[in-house]
Amino acid sequence: MDVDSLLRSAAALLLLVLGGVWSFPLGQEGERTPACGYESCHVTQPDMLNVHLVPHTHDDVGWLKTVDQYYYGDRNDIQHAGVQYILDSVVDQLLKNPDRRFIYVETAFFYRWWKQQSSGMQQTVKRLVDEGRLEFVNGGWCMSDEATTHYSAVIDQMTMGLRFLNDTFGPCGRPRVAWHIDPFGHAREHASMFAQMGYDGFFLGRLDYQDRKRRRTAREQELLWRASESLTPPMADLFTGILPNGYNPPDGFCWDQSCDDPPIRDDPELEDYNVDDVVRRFLAIAHKQAQVYKTNHIIMTMGSDFQYENANLWYKNLDKLIRYVNAQQARGGRVNALYSTPSCYLQELHRANLSWALKTDDFFPYADAAHDYWTGYFTSRPALKRYERISNGRLQTCNQLEVLGGPISRNGPFGKGDSETMKKAVAVAQHHDAVSGTEKQHVADDYARRLASGWQRCQVLVSNSLAALSGSTAKRIYCDNLNISVCPLTESSKKFSVNVYNPLVRAVIWPVRLPVNGTSYEVSDAEGRSVDCQVVPVSAETQVVRRSRGSAPNELVFQVRAPPLGFNTYSVSLLRDGPPPAPAQRRAPTAIQNQFLRATFDPATGLLSGLSNLETKRTIKLTQNFFWYNASDGNNTRSNQPSGAYIFRPNSSTPFLISPATPVLQEVRQWFAPWVSQVVRLHADSRALELEWTVGPLPIRDNLGKEVITRLDTSIKTAEYFYTDSNGREMLQRKKDFRPTWKLRQSEPIAGNYHPINSRAFIKDDEDQLTVVTDRSQGGASIHNGSLEIMLHRRLLYDDVRGVAEPLNETSSVFPEGLVVRGRLLLSLQRPDGAADAHRPLAQQEVLQPTLSFTDGEPHPNTRLQVRGAEGEGTSDHSRVTVLLTCNDWDPADLRPWSSSVVLRAAGCAAPCCAPAHTDPVGRGLGKLFSTLEVLGVSELNLSANQWKDEMTRLDWTPQMEEKPLLKRPGDPSALEVTLMPMEIRTFLLRVR
Amino acid sequence: MDVDSLLRSAAALLLLVLGGVWSFPLGQEGERTPACGYESCHVTQPDMLNVHLVPHTHDDVGWLKTVDQYYYGDRNDIQHAGVQYILDSVVDQLLKNPDRRFIYVETAFFYRWWKQQSSGMQQTVKRLVDEGRLEFVNGGWCMSDEATTHYSAVIDQMTMGLRFLNDTFGPCGRPRVAWHIDPFGHAREHASMFAQMGYDGFFLGRLDYQDRKRRRTAREQELLWRASESLTPPMADLFTGILPNGYNPPDGFCWDQSCDDPPIRDDPELEDYNVDDVVRRFLAIAHKQAQVYKTNHIIMTMGSDFQYENANLWYKNLDKLIRYVNAQQARGGRVNALYSTPSCYLQELHRANLSWALKTDDFFPYADAAHDYWTGYFTSRPALKRYERISNGRLQTCNQLEVLGGPISRNGPFGKGDSETMKKAVAVAQHHDAVSGTEKQHVADDYARRLASGWQRCQVLVSNSLAALSGSTAKRIYCDNLNISVCPLTESSKKFSVNVYNPLVRAVIWPVRLPVNGTSYEVSDAEGRSVDCQVVPVSAETQVVRRSRGSAPNELVFQVRAPPLGFNTYSVSLLRDGPPPAPAQRRAPTAIQNQFLRATFDPATGLLSGLSNLETKRTIKLTQNFFWYNASDGNNTRSNQPSGAYIFRPNSSTPFLISPATPVLQEVRQWFAPWVSQVVRLHADSRALELEWTVGPLPIRDNLGKEVITRLDTSIKTAEYFYTDSNGREMLQRKKDFRPTWKLRQSEPIAGNYHPINSRAFIKDDEDQLTVVTDRSQGGASIHNGSLEIMLHRRLLYDDVRGVAEPLNETSSVFPEGLVVRGRLLLSLQRPDGAADAHRPLAQQEVLQPTLSFTDGEPHPNTRLQVRGAEGEGTSDHSRVTVLLTCNDWDPADLRPWSSSVVLRAAGCAAPCCAPAHTDPVGRGLGKLFSTLEVLGVSELNLSANQWKDEMTRLDWTPQMEEKPLLKRPGDPSALEVTLMPMEIRTFLLRVR
Repeated sequence: MDVDSLLRSAAALLLLVLGGVWSFPLGQEGERTPACGYESCHVTQPDMLNVHLVPHTHDDVGWLKTVDQYYYGDRNDIQHAGVQYILDSVVDQLLKNPDRRFIYVETAFFYRWWKQQSSGMQQTVKRLVDEGRLEFVNGGWCMSDEATTHYSAVIDQMTMGLRFLNDTFGPCGRPRVAWHIDPFGHAREHASMFAQMGYDGFFLGRLDYQDRKRRRTAREQELLWRASESLTPPMADLFTGILPNGYNPPDGFCWDQSCDDPPIRDDPELEDYNVDDVVRRFLAIAHKQAQVYKTNHIIMTMGSDFQYENANLWYKNLDKLIRYVNAQQARGGRVNALYSTPSCYLQELHRANLSWALKTDDFFPYADAAHDYWTGYFTSRPALKRYERISNGRLQTCNQLEVLGGPISRNGPFGKGDSETMKKAVAVAQHHDAVSGTEKQHVADDYARRLASGWQRCQVLVSNSLAALSGSTAKRIYCDNLNISVCPLTESSKKFSVNVYNPLVRAVIWPVRLPVNGTSYEVSDAEGRSVDCQVVPVSAETQVVRRSRGSAPNELVFQVRAPPLGFNTYSVSLLRDGPPPAPAQRRAPTAIQNQFLRATFDPATGLLSGLSNLETKRTIKLTQNFFWYNASDGNNTRSNQPSGAYIFRPNSSTPFLISPATPVLQEVRQWFAPWVSQVVRLHADSRALELEWTVGPLPIRDNLGKEVITRLDTSIKTAEYFYTDSNGREMLQRKKDFRPTWKLRQSEPIAGNYHPINSRAFIKDDEDQLTVVTDRSQGGASIHNGSLEIMLHRRLLYDDVRGVAEPLNETSSVFPEGLVVRGRLLLSLQRPDGAADAHRPLAQQEVLQPTLSFTDGEPHPNTRLQVRGAEGEGTSDHSRVTVLLTCNDWDPADLRPWSSSVVLRAAGCAAPCCAPAHTDPVGRGLGKLFSTLEVLGVSELNLSANQWKDEMTRLDWTPQMEEKPLLKRPGDPSALEVTLMPMEIRTFLLRVR
Repeated sequence: MDVDSLLRSAAALLLLVLGGVWSFPLGQEGERTPACGYESCHVTQPDMLNVHLVPHTHDDVGWLKTVDQYYYGDRNDIQHAGVQYILDSVVDQLLKNPDRRFIYVETAFFYRWWKQQSSGMQQTVKRLVDEGRLEFVNGGWCMSDEATTHYSAVIDQMTMGLRFLNDTFGPCGRPRVAWHIDPFGHAREHASMFAQMGYDGFFLGRLDYQDRKRRRTAREQELLWRASESLTPPMADLFTGILPNGYNPPDGFCWDQSCDDPPIRDDPELEDYNVDDVVRRFLAIAHKQAQVYKTNHIIMTMGSDFQYENANLWYKNLDKLIRYVNAQQARGGRVNALYSTPSCYLQELHRANLSWALKTDDFFPYADAAHDYWTGYFTSRPALKRYERISNGRLQTCNQLEVLGGPISRNGPFGKGDSETMKKAVAVAQHHDAVSGTEKQHVADDYARRLASGWQRCQVLVSNSLAALSGSTAKRIYCDNLNISVCPLTESSKKFSVNVYNPLVRAVIWPVRLPVNGTSYEVSDAEGRSVDCQVVPVSAETQVVRRSRGSAPNELVFQVRAPPLGFNTYSVSLLRDGPPPAPAQRRAPTAIQNQFLRATFDPATGLLSGLSNLETKRTIKLTQNFFWYNASDGNNTRSNQPSGAYIFRPNSSTPFLISPATPVLQEVRQWFAPWVSQVVRLHADSRALELEWTVGPLPIRDNLGKEVITRLDTSIKTAEYFYTDSNGREMLQRKKDFRPTWKLRQSEPIAGNYHPINSRAFIKDDEDQLTVVTDRSQGGASIHNGSLEIMLHRRLLYDDVRGVAEPLNETSSVFPEGLVVRGRLLLSLQRPDGAADAHRPLAQQEVLQPTLSFTDGEPHPNTRLQVRGAEGEGTSDHSRVTVLLTCNDWDPADLRPWSSSVVLRAAGCAAPCCAPAHTDPVGRGLGKLFSTLEVLGVSELNLSANQWKDEMTRLDWTPQMEEKPLLKRPGDPSALEVTLMPMEIRTFLLRVR
């Protein structure tokens, strides 16, 4: 039974669902009609300038302190901030005056606070929410970073926050507005997702200073963002507002405990009575602000980082401000100040019924001044970035196996496991000071600890689930350090088995490298067929970086295959112990190749020299090398901005070549310096060349900060264009020293051309496209014709004065001399028209890697979970273009044994590179998923699973110039034909038994 | 009708008063029985260690910011503090949990806050007060300084605060406990006053580090202070507790927004769960603290400077602390933590029924470490100290004339005047960072501005009152700059009159010096009799310091007389304009004398050389000179403590002599340096020698901080003793390098011997006593035999790291090069047994100086207000020993036109130096006061006028060793015979018509 059929058969049930037979927690039952959202807004004055005062707090889910320290207000010596008190205080203050409003954003914090409240307080808060006095905006678990996150994790974290709000507050808890006031630049894919989640509008605080200047003059700070080239408008259209003052209050009007602005002193008996002065200053600011916006409504964000811990200070003065400003109306004043929220402000903009400038590009890179490009964080903390990406993949495996294994997964032979810990850890890691790398070191450590802790809990769940599915309760080992060839079991065991679970909806072939002490092994698959394998010596670099954690001299290398959403099991037996294999050849090979690809090397330098696609018969010249930029130390005539966690600013546009000397080659292992090496591999059956780089510890004894790149120089005629993905989804065109939106004055020739790469980037000309798939988010640029550079690692000596107050200088207990980072790039050479079909699955399998688990001794009964309906193990067209984003138990964990709803989310292929044939029903291989689970019904949800899809109505906005849609929508799909349009993501709720 | 008769006739009425015929606002009517005070305390555990957690805030009535800035939370860049928010927040938090307690101290702030509250909020607060959840402690307008204040001003400010509390809250608003947790040392007179105000106990935070150490070991941190040598115990006995930790919470338990201590993290799901650690640390501290106190009750002050602005932080964690600590009891824990107040703690100490160590000395000087003596502030800001003293006198005049003149005083021919502004300004100036001189410069300026503003309002009132009393509405001029010979009217007018109002209850003779341009004048008194006068040239120093504010070359000098609580008027007519008088004699006189005194000078040096009392025929050798101590700059091997606003620490114990060269003398004008000069005067009819010193601007180009003293070296054999007053009342014996309470290790031979002088100090032997009466509070010491030194001025280059964060380096717009200060010392030479009779009136008239007002042209009808019953104008025994402290309208200003109650406060003479004959009815000269006001009734109040005297019951305490009372009380005075015992102060409420 494939999903097509499934959905078709569920159509009748769907009607029942919507008729109320099912009771999904998307609405509160038996409640009075709430006057929240747009209905709860204060009246405005049509003939006056209305100033919407929006009290808000910006609560980073970790930054200078850990998320828990922020919640409790611990370590106030680092930064004064305690979210528990903020929420305590705001609720108290909202109760004092029904006119007051507050918005709350970060559900990770709100959730914790809510759980600690009495039921009386919870009822009080519900009332405030129902009356629109407390309004949630954005509402995800955190305010995600936009440059370094993968869309799948962003959807998950948004869903987690929004569903909590929905479960707790019903429709009044659903945010109408997306609110990314702090992220350091904005991704188009985020806007697209927000649109698909049903948001009516979006507000941001940071954009390039030149862009802002132009938009102020042109009154284009409020615009319509068309955020997808594939989705039919207005599906990915998002009204976008740029806030007037970042997210801070206007100068002189910050009344938080953290501010020093003068309070309103309205007692004539006291000295310094200042009401007249305050009103005068306020009106001046309001009138000036109104000049750069279109309507007679303006917004002022009255709050900032961790403000409102003592909300009384703010509200007491805001009450007075509103009173005294509006008192001027009796004397002819034409300004009306009011408590408001972003949605109330948005509603007034919508009522203005204007047309708005259309934007189709993104907001990267972000510079706040001529030499201050926030492009360093695209790469900052590469190890954390990688760990976040791995963890997101592990979480998907954990979620899937929780569904497949049923309740026994959570409480089975290996004890109690859960996916919640990992869900929260990965959600928190999406924060714009988490995976972004812009947090303090101890906070980065905390994020990593959380992810590790999540994986520990997931391991139990996965073991339980696999035990149920395989019929074996043998102990399973997860070797998390295979990247440095450490795995005590494989190093010591003479006979063990490897279970390979594949979370993709297509079959996968995956290279496995296991540390071993033996020199000869036999490997066989689930059917007992022998599998090719070889034993190679562990590289010298690996031996160095693994320190005392392992000592195996060899690696056993073989390819494994696993079916969609299933597993395979391989047996490994030691054949010969004894001396290590003969040393690899002394001379480097001049080429490596398989049936698909050939990579050639320059015998003189040992560097890559060319790449050929043997299928398309296209060859390009390709040189790859490693360089480092000398980070600015801030001593510079043009600007004193140093490179730091956020900012990338090289001292010179010419990077230093690492090791110009003749490299030592062993096999295709390349050694550039004691702190840079690489292994080039071409696996059997693979269309991609793998470049496994190892960088670090970056030397800083020379007192030079270093920002290490690898640069691919090719014969491709790029004409200054290159392409990067947006959060792992659609691709965006980038041009050197150019912005689609405004005429750029380029002041930083390197940093100002860097863009975020989340999963892949490419350069191309009419004939050839070289795509690089990354294993984590990184920054990249194309500075020279035919060239693509990717920043791999950064080590800096100075803080860049954006708040983190630490130089980005990563060390750890294992690497006190500086962090060593290892990663890989996958290179794909294709003709441009077929390239997407190649690089998209490559990128997918980097995100959703197989999960390996090991069992000592003989393999056990069900060595293979074969999904019915999956055709072969190759990469079919179908499976290549459809992504299973989410397969997840729906109900809260504590209810799950008695419940059985599953949320399923699938993504279509990417336009424009996927053909109409790819508008594909939701995969073919999912039938097996339901072979043990009888599907009782299906309902479609919005992207964030907090609203029924057919109840999702959004405000409509008119662009100034209607552009021709890039793809015409090929007719409405019928209710029964569930089809994924290009780049469409659809979310379903399945009721199963 | 004298007061004796008055009181006698009022006795019958008194019964009526107490029977309720009068309705004084000392109790709330028709209210339910409140359970405040001792009745509202939480139960304790008799078999456990009870830890009284006392949430509190310490709100300086000005320090780094002005009182208004503190109230509103302005200038938070200087210090984060906003009292309005503290009270908002505390009330909110008290409502959340009825167990919570809070104490509030400074009524200056509470009063402002109260006036801004809605009636609903006021009712809420009343309920909290009635239930003992919000308790007032201390309750004066401010927490007065103890080293530099005069008792009359302290009583006034206490009365103002306590009466507001009483009027507002009734008995539940009456503090049971005095609370001086921050003042820098403690005066015995303060303790005496607190006892007479009805306080049951007193808590302090600062005492000498050696004293504390001894008391900790001896468990004598709680004691009985017998605070008067004159008053019969237990009249001035005050139970005194020394708080364990200053007034701060124990280490690690500060949960204010201003602190960084870890909050209680009791959610096991969050990292760093720390409940066990918190409880363990708390118990360790509690047990350790219990070892240095006597009972199974200990107190912890949970708060500090301006804390509780966000009270939720404190209470949320305190709630948890109490819960988790007491949860240990179920597991055998023997510690009981509870919310408490100082009075609840005091009640438990009283219930312990122990005997307590007896103390009869004071707590001066205060050192917090071996080289850190807080004796600099005795003198710091001498100009402000003088201005405060003048202002207190002006306020008494203002109060008296408000009563005498009736309602027209407040709204009369010169407009609207009031005494409230001055009352508040003088009350605020008593704060321990106000007159103490330990505030920032801008705050000192603000205090001065307030006093000036108060005097402006009083001037209108005084003019109105004098107009009513004199029958003349001619414009009155107040020449406030006579100290620098500036008065535009006297400088320009050819005929003017001088009104001299005398606030003393005895007649006064007073020297007047008026700047004039003429060279010959005629002066006549109210009866037209000619008065001796002379014209002398203005001194060169005066011409310098008055800058451009005046240019009169001459001064007209004559003596005026004024009756008790009355006025006299003198007419002045120009006889001869023209050239200035002939220059004064070139040679200095070798002696000056009148009928009482002879002062001789060394012709070689020009310095004083001897002083003779011509009545007693006693002569002493007396040399006076000026020196400066080189202030430590902190660069010192023994300690890095510099001199500063608080701390006095000379670099060397040997001061530098100012100008060892032969001084230039003109008449008895002495010139020591460009920045030190003096005029020595002996007025007709005066028993005191006047030394008018002018010091400043202190030069600092040499980068040496300077602390200028004048030193009197005499032939008196002092045997290392000298004597200083306590707040202007009783005298205390001081001995060099000695403390009565503990064996002193002297580490600062100069600073460690300094004591506060509020109004006078003396040295004596069996035959002679030389008393110095000061015109402001100063520091003084007797370092050498026969020597008395007084510090006059200080100018420092460093901050002394006690918080003020400014060097004490006073400049002003008029004196940008450094402040010039002028003052005078009055020297009296008497036999020891008669000295008090001489120096006490001298000191009184320094405090209550006549008020001069000037009218251009002819004098007007009633030139003299003669008080009936005052016998002559001399200094009778009676008038010399009784002080009218307060004569004041009782009711709030806005009720006064329809009300007519007067509060009258009189002080008896000082023991042991006043004979039994001086146990005197309340003066004789008050009859006139009531000649226009019919007295309907009299009731006696406690010292602070917030409780009927006969309802004042205090807890009784047992001293460890009962000492023989120094003076036996000569029988209870009958209810009808109102008599003032030595040092007794009695306060009466008169209902008048």
